Amino acid sequence: MRIAVLGTGSVGRAIAARTAELGHRVTIGTRDVATTRAGDHAAWMARHPEVGLATLPEAASAAELVVNATNGSASLPALTAAGAANLSGKVLLDIANPLDFGAGFPPSLTVHNTDSLAERIQREFPQAKVVKSLNTLTAELMVRPRQLADGEHTVFVSGDDAEAKRIVTGLLVSFGHTDVIDLGDLSTARGVEMVLPLWLRLYGRLDTATFNIKVVR
Amino acid sequence: MRIAVLGTGSVGRAIAARTAELGHRVTIGTRDVATTRAGDHAAWMARHPEVGLATLPEAASAAELVVNATNGSASLPALTAAGAANLSGKVLLDIANPLDFGAGFPPSLTVHNTDSLAERIQREFPQAKVVKSLNTLTAELMVRPRQLADGEHTVFVSGDDAEAKRIVTGLLVSFGHTDVIDLGDLSTARGVEMVLPLWLRLYGRLDTATFNIKVVR
Repeated sequence: MRIAVLGTGSVGRAIAARTAELGHRVTIGTRDVATTRAGDHAAWMARHPEVGLATLPEAASAAELVVNATNGSASLPALTAAGAANLSGKVLLDIANPLDFGAGFPPSLTVHNTDSLAERIQREFPQAKVVKSLNTLTAELMVRPRQLADGEHTVFVSGDDAEAKRIVTGLLVSFGHTDVIDLGDLSTARGVEMVLPLWLRLYGRLDTATFNIKVVR
Repeated sequence: MRIAVLGTGSVGRAIAARTAELGHRVTIGTRDVATTRAGDHAAWMARHPEVGLATLPEAASAAELVVNATNGSASLPALTAAGAANLSGKVLLDIANPLDFGAGFPPSLTVHNTDSLAERIQREFPQAKVVKSLNTLTAELMVRPRQLADGEHTVFVSGDDAEAKRIVTGLLVSFGHTDVIDLGDLSTARGVEMVLPLWLRLYGRLDTATFNIKVVR
């Protein structure tokens, strides 16, 4: 698949490197290519020559699947810069969390309870097929789940388009996930985004980000 | 221990029956004893003669540990009826979820993100030692966790008083819980209350309430 990963943070890098390793053609999209090339992303790029770098609209337009790996507060502007036409008809895997660090750590959520970032993105880009997933675990576990308890833990998918969820689920399984629960329509993204307050407290308490929740049933 | 369980719903009944079975002296507190005796609670009482029934203030005043097993929307009025003086200095185990069914199923939360029901209760009753716990799983699993995966799943405690958390943790372990995570101060109750939107969707999806989350680490 041709995959565009929007965002150069730890999540974007993990997804880009892993999908490229699995044989996909991957381009990271960034707001300003020259600035990204000149910044601390340069060393990562040197280690990952198989991953391309392009502007947000260039990356999105060439892709079949677009990954939103931007910060939650930057997601709507970044996707707007990528261009609605370049997202139209495509699977848009949204991993972002709408965290508000305005009052320090732990952050609260800017969207919650009766709405979610994923639904906002879907409303703003109605032609995209938004699937929320992977936002409930740390970047390295997203793409290499078997490093923890041999993958015996759970990830979720939420979305209105069954085929888009099927494609994302296939990607998750290729990463090594063994327990992917389809929660239902995109409004179920409220539930997984609202896991973050618990996740953040566990992160503080367990002194590691290498943990995940398993739905035992 | 002398335990007062406020609330005659499935959570109150499960906690009352199990703690009585474990040898505690247990009284259920209800707003109107005569109405409760005459209603559908009568059959349950006949099966559990070891559990007393009293008014909210009577039950609370006689107890060392008070359990808030009321509906989240009724919790503050019920605790007010129980009386601040009767809660003073006592462990107040809060299991309630602040669910808002105003827009049907699934409910949203009336308190969330930068506050929690547990913190509201603590502010309203500053002399009580509020501990949030058990709100993330169904009533029967709260008190008999070993019936699912031999207890291989997680419960949380949140609270400002270390001794109160120790007492509640002891009670949880006596129920059969093997993995009790102390999340920290009472503001961490936001995290566990905000698990409910995910819980409710999983409940719809898995077609059973007999599930729980395990923090795999």
